[in-house]
Amino acid sequence: MSLIVQKYGGTSLASIERIKAVAEKIKKIKDDNNQLVVSVSAMSGETNRLIKVANQIHNNPSVREMDVLLTTGEQITISLLSMALHQINCDAISYTGPQVQIITDSKHGKARIKTIQDHKIRKSLAENKVVVIAGFQGVDINGNITTLGRGGSDTTAVALSATLKADECQIYTDVDGVYTADPRIEPNAKRMNVVSYEEMLEMSSLGSKVLQIRSVEFASKYKVPLRVLSSMIEKPKGTLITDEENIMEKVLISGIAHNKDEAKLSLINVANEPGTAYKILSAISDANIEIDMIIQGASDNEEMTNLAFTVNRNDFDNAKEILKRIGNEVNAKDIRYDNKVVKVSLVGVGMRSHTGIASRMFKALHKENINIQMISTSEIKISVIIDEKYLELAVRSLHDAFKLDMIREDNF
Amino acid sequence: MSLIVQKYGGTSLASIERIKAVAEKIKKIKDDNNQLVVSVSAMSGETNRLIKVANQIHNNPSVREMDVLLTTGEQITISLLSMALHQINCDAISYTGPQVQIITDSKHGKARIKTIQDHKIRKSLAENKVVVIAGFQGVDINGNITTLGRGGSDTTAVALSATLKADECQIYTDVDGVYTADPRIEPNAKRMNVVSYEEMLEMSSLGSKVLQIRSVEFASKYKVPLRVLSSMIEKPKGTLITDEENIMEKVLISGIAHNKDEAKLSLINVANEPGTAYKILSAISDANIEIDMIIQGASDNEEMTNLAFTVNRNDFDNAKEILKRIGNEVNAKDIRYDNKVVKVSLVGVGMRSHTGIASRMFKALHKENINIQMISTSEIKISVIIDEKYLELAVRSLHDAFKLDMIREDNF
Repeated sequence: MSLIVQKYGGTSLASIERIKAVAEKIKKIKDDNNQLVVSVSAMSGETNRLIKVANQIHNNPSVREMDVLLTTGEQITISLLSMALHQINCDAISYTGPQVQIITDSKHGKARIKTIQDHKIRKSLAENKVVVIAGFQGVDINGNITTLGRGGSDTTAVALSATLKADECQIYTDVDGVYTADPRIEPNAKRMNVVSYEEMLEMSSLGSKVLQIRSVEFASKYKVPLRVLSSMIEKPKGTLITDEENIMEKVLISGIAHNKDEAKLSLINVANEPGTAYKILSAISDANIEIDMIIQGASDNEEMTNLAFTVNRNDFDNAKEILKRIGNEVNAKDIRYDNKVVKVSLVGVGMRSHTGIASRMFKALHKENINIQMISTSEIKISVIIDEKYLELAVRSLHDAFKLDMIREDNF
Repeated sequence: MSLIVQKYGGTSLASIERIKAVAEKIKKIKDDNNQLVVSVSAMSGETNRLIKVANQIHNNPSVREMDVLLTTGEQITISLLSMALHQINCDAISYTGPQVQIITDSKHGKARIKTIQDHKIRKSLAENKVVVIAGFQGVDINGNITTLGRGGSDTTAVALSATLKADECQIYTDVDGVYTADPRIEPNAKRMNVVSYEEMLEMSSLGSKVLQIRSVEFASKYKVPLRVLSSMIEKPKGTLITDEENIMEKVLISGIAHNKDEAKLSLINVANEPGTAYKILSAISDANIEIDMIIQGASDNEEMTNLAFTVNRNDFDNAKEILKRIGNEVNAKDIRYDNKVVKVSLVGVGMRSHTGIASRMFKALHKENINIQMISTSEIKISVIIDEKYLELAVRSLHDAFKLDMIREDNF
């Protein structure tokens, strides 16, 4: 008998019919001699509806009261899903986050799970019940209701898996796993059977929206085998995310991630002296703008340097205003702005042992006349910033250059 | 400084605008140097919406899961009302039933409050906050979410008042107090300034829908001064419900209650021997049908008797079927059914010390040629069953006969 923790997102539970379909799926897996703990999100659209109502009452609602409001979303789903299971003669019981004592810190709206009490869950499992738990929510030590922030129900599922030492944590979503590239861009993209935590972390941070990055960090820390599957198809295979050492057949490059939300800002010819970069970048950080890639390089004058960095496009206008002010202070010769750039990244643990990946990547882009504006590397990824008009071309030519369509989908 | 507990029902909170209006009302009372604890219901319509959704999933949903589902209704209201208070600079904090540990028994859907922990409420009051508490809900000793049943938020408010020893418990509703008769029937009906717990209990049980009977019982037991007021008008006076001994100027008759939901069933000429009434009435009770009035009287044969009783009209068809079966067993000569009857009742503590009330009542009805089909009396009320076509006439002629329009509205 295996203990499986599953998570169903809001899209999978968006209607009465879908809730019933999820119940059928759960019953099948339980009847296959498994113990099941299921963590659920609010029905798709519900959270946005509640936020809209709150904003009609207060222009900046209290974060504590927002958490009280939003957690009703999953509370509705856990009861409805339990009823749907009862209807098909599958015993089930629901618990809210506070009920199973998913203890978090007190940072409303973005709380972090500290501990989970397992005795209620264990007791209900022993009674042969499917345990349905509200994702995304918890309670602080003073009994205040908290939320983990958007996408937090992935984290709930992983934390439950770690606490219960589950055999597998299955995240049901609207895509059937992690692909070698976005299939909407590269029709030859292949589903990966298996990928390491580290690669998945890079993919998430580089723009792949399959999993919340925090849930991957959590899974990696507690070695929870994590599987991403589609709730929309009959027998999904999905992608297993696991420890690198559990992966037998290592591939050089796992996949290509991209991020369209990039914007680039550059200061030309600022004083090449200690403190300049700090002065500029701290002004940006102070405005709560997250800086992604940074490069600093030579200019045509030895005493001068150029500094370029990228931010999320949502922060572009703000960053621009700050730079206009700071640019004068540091006597920048010129300031350039570009919010028509994207980031394309190669990810793969194979890079550790193989050299020449970067040059193969640059060669492939050069062949298509794609100019590389910025480069950033880590142990298992290489990212480049390019003009957004080349996004599709870059993804496809890299997919082709590294023969990612040759990955066999059924080798695990 | 007074400590006031208030309760706002679903109609008072049915829209964003009404929630804002309630917040304004609360702020004014707080600014008048009062401490405030506010208990709220779900927004009008929300509970029915959730029940409808549940019934689309399960034809007989688990009562435990229904409670998990329905309690989201008040959880939404407490957060929204708190935000509305914040918006007008009135500090406030929300608590769900489980959060303040409103401990109930485990009877889902109709739980009874056992204890309430007051330390969180006291602490928040000391911090000068309005405390907004979800009515209608609690938690059993095993941490299961429970509900008190429909109208239960009145009971929550009274229980909070008893626990906190509040100076007054104010129930805001859509009528401005308790009237000497239904103003839709008797235009001369007057609002009572004050009425005793006992009278209010009789009125509630006799069909007045102003207050849940259980909340009045609770108030009576713990001597909580209870005031019913309208949330729709600017400076409502309402009706104070209090201990009989606090009422200075006693009136003979307080008011006239009526109930349109009556149906009468009679067995003619059944054996006048021990066990006959038991046999008949237990068959009705076993079907979970509540019997209201019962009379047994002589028939034209000494060994025979007639038995008549009333039930709620919703139960009429069921009761009829049972009686057809039982009627044969007890050899009833005839069985008669009438679901076109109503109950009209006179209520007043003055009856205790004055005789002749009944004869005055019967005389007034006789004068209008209204036939009395059944009579039932208690220490402070007299009820009669009459043909429903005489309802309005009976209420008006009794109101007139006992000069109830002479009660002064402002003497308390």
